[in-house]
Amino acid sequence: MKTAAKRSSRSVAFQGELGAFSQQAVRQLLGPSTSVVPCIRFEDIFRNLKDGNVAGAMVPIENTLAGSVHENYDHLLHFELPIVAETSVRIVHNLIAPKGVAFRQLKRVFSHPVALNQCLDFFLANPQIERIPYYDTAGSAKMVVEEGLTDSGAIASAVAAEIYGAHILRKSIESDRQNFTRFFLLRTPEYAKRHPARVPAGTVWKTTLVFSTRNIPGALFRALSAFALRDLNCTKIESRPLRGKPYEYLFYLDFLGHVDHPSSQNALRNLEEITDFLRVLGCYPKGA
Amino acid sequence: MKTAAKRSSRSVAFQGELGAFSQQAVRQLLGPSTSVVPCIRFEDIFRNLKDGNVAGAMVPIENTLAGSVHENYDHLLHFELPIVAETSVRIVHNLIAPKGVAFRQLKRVFSHPVALNQCLDFFLANPQIERIPYYDTAGSAKMVVEEGLTDSGAIASAVAAEIYGAHILRKSIESDRQNFTRFFLLRTPEYAKRHPARVPAGTVWKTTLVFSTRNIPGALFRALSAFALRDLNCTKIESRPLRGKPYEYLFYLDFLGHVDHPSSQNALRNLEEITDFLRVLGCYPKGA
Repeated sequence: MKTAAKRSSRSVAFQGELGAFSQQAVRQLLGPSTSVVPCIRFEDIFRNLKDGNVAGAMVPIENTLAGSVHENYDHLLHFELPIVAETSVRIVHNLIAPKGVAFRQLKRVFSHPVALNQCLDFFLANPQIERIPYYDTAGSAKMVVEEGLTDSGAIASAVAAEIYGAHILRKSIESDRQNFTRFFLLRTPEYAKRHPARVPAGTVWKTTLVFSTRNIPGALFRALSAFALRDLNCTKIESRPLRGKPYEYLFYLDFLGHVDHPSSQNALRNLEEITDFLRVLGCYPKGA
Repeated sequence: MKTAAKRSSRSVAFQGELGAFSQQAVRQLLGPSTSVVPCIRFEDIFRNLKDGNVAGAMVPIENTLAGSVHENYDHLLHFELPIVAETSVRIVHNLIAPKGVAFRQLKRVFSHPVALNQCLDFFLANPQIERIPYYDTAGSAKMVVEEGLTDSGAIASAVAAEIYGAHILRKSIESDRQNFTRFFLLRTPEYAKRHPARVPAGTVWKTTLVFSTRNIPGALFRALSAFALRDLNCTKIESRPLRGKPYEYLFYLDFLGHVDHPSSQNALRNLEEITDFLRVLGCYPKGA
């Protein structure tokens, strides 16, 4: 892709249409003027960064209601692109309609099934409005505007409303406000080396790694002890199946600490003794 | 549902069309003459059992390639229906067509996207055949037969071919044979009490439980130590988000041991000291 190659030095790939929550993550971490490359599938974001078409990839990794985005854990393992930053986006669902369309005109609302499900209280209170599943939140906002629908709305981010020139009829209609998505910013290994993070003194660091334990009793306990014995706080653990070894697992683990710190180094050496496979996926400032 | 109520004393609910791999799990555990109630959504199987419409529910919990069925972990927590047995089904994907249709006639093959993805080698070797996503594996076999398609096949189980009167053109076209799905058989608490498992001496037991740790450093390590200190082998751990507490987690854990055994009881008492919430989801003979 010529266009993508041209803007490769600065642009960041994300999954979804323009106005997706991933784009909000890009704005939060890198500012509103960062150019973006929307992609159809998660795999495409990784592929575009690996191939040098973009300078970064913004990857959703977990949502506080729906859980981990397991597919992206698998891609982290396969593409070997370092995590250089994290950020957490509050998911605010807005009821959006083409300009001129009033709330009482709405007969149906389009959005991604997960977003529709996260606004059940709104639909219970408004039984006259039908929920219609659509492939993307921002895409549903784009569609109702482009088709000029006068009886339909969409559920999407405020950024989507802005981008597609729609207006917001109801702000924040999600049932549960404790709804956040955590994102990883990935770079190429070369870029990460040339541009080390410049951070204030006292920054708390996080390290993400992946390992598989030997299939022996207490293997995971021993692995976690490598951190516990050094007072390193593990903030997340996620298991994924190990291909070719039915009912054995890979573990993805986040702990607080810089990978180069002596206690982290000791923990990793300890971990190497008791694992079959171990790789550091990234070390980055702990996000707000 | 009158029909469902009538057969409630013996039938088992599963998700998918007749001929789904879940039905194979029912046959493996309970024999081929067990009557079954196919359901559209996972939630429906739990609901049918809770409401007394069926006597059991067969629930897929993890696949050795795709990972855990996280939605069903959430349902296990909410419906409080005990796990009384487990079984593992080898997923064999067969290329199926209506009788009379030959391999060279095939222009397209329908199946669930996961099944299509698990047969990539077959599609690479046969580029003339288009892959078309369908909502269900067994459903795709049903459809090509009912529509009498002469240029289309489906990917589904041998049981589906048998049920819909189709024939198998190619056996076992999955790329990776280490493809198993583990199922839980659920009963109502009353049924489980009235019908304790009759098992041979020397049976190995498994217990599944769910807990949330206090948000303190090393919390998961302390929880696992309750088992490690008593030589109880944990065979699986799965994390899910804890609703209302962003970036805190519930852990689902399987360990080898009968819940009534003294060392299990000690481990559970130890676990209670360091968890906010703890519930045993079931104790059942370890499956083959």
